[in-house]
Amino acid sequence: MISEAADCPLCTPRHEVIWASPEIDVIAVEDARWPGYVRVIWRDHVAEMTDLNAAQRQRLMSVVWCVEAAQRGVLHPRKVNVAALGNQVPHLHWHVIPRWVDDANWPDAIWAPARRESPSLRVPAETLARFQAELRTGLEAIAATW
Amino acid sequence: MISEAADCPLCTPRHEVIWASPEIDVIAVEDARWPGYVRVIWRDHVAEMTDLNAAQRQRLMSVVWCVEAAQRGVLHPRKVNVAALGNQVPHLHWHVIPRWVDDANWPDAIWAPARRESPSLRVPAETLARFQAELRTGLEAIAATW
Repeated sequence: MISEAADCPLCTPRHEVIWASPEIDVIAVEDARWPGYVRVIWRDHVAEMTDLNAAQRQRLMSVVWCVEAAQRGVLHPRKVNVAALGNQVPHLHWHVIPRWVDDANWPDAIWAPARRESPSLRVPAETLARFQAELRTGLEAIAATW
Repeated sequence: MISEAADCPLCTPRHEVIWASPEIDVIAVEDARWPGYVRVIWRDHVAEMTDLNAAQRQRLMSVVWCVEAAQRGVLHPRKVNVAALGNQVPHLHWHVIPRWVDDANWPDAIWAPARRESPSLRVPAETLARFQAELRTGLEAIAATW
């Protein structure tokens, strides 16, 4: 049974769902500064990775690594940033963020003050669509082993 | 064989080593704002989690979760923040950061501008020592299964 919190924005994700399993939602974060930015959300309303058991943690992280691999394979960022913070929304979720040396905050975290404007239209829409398609294929292959 | 980069500060960690294995260094980050802040460093000079194979990733993450569990068990933070960024130092490492509602940056990431001063002496030295001792015990138990 999935527990939900009435006022939690991640219990009902509003962004575009790239892929979903009974446990996990993979969401496209629509932010032109970081094309390909993905949020991986544990469906159940828990706060910390250590609230999950080892098998759940492993399934969740295998999704995160699949996102990273697809970002690297299709979008070729300079670096991938991976973080689970949850101070403002204590519902377990991972930020998986492709970074480029001319993006708004490089080389700082995206939560630091911006240093510049990100270039617009860094990634063509068809490349983003290919990223999402490859990611779905990769996630289906992983989920088939669960 | 371990690869090293001549100018990489994480190839030769300078902070206090809490625990180490042939693959992983667990470091106490001495920052009074976030007592119990730990950095988990992959020994080899690689940049991304997807540069590791699945078994290496699993060992590294099991160390990260052990840190989180010890922080929660002994230090009782409001939240734990977990992040692998590496934009400035592209040598794979995890930040595992206990957070409190009155710390300098709460509820923002620690990389955002500070909102206040953290209280001093939040965690007595003996509690921090107990945290490190419990963490070492936990890590030895995990490493015994490798």
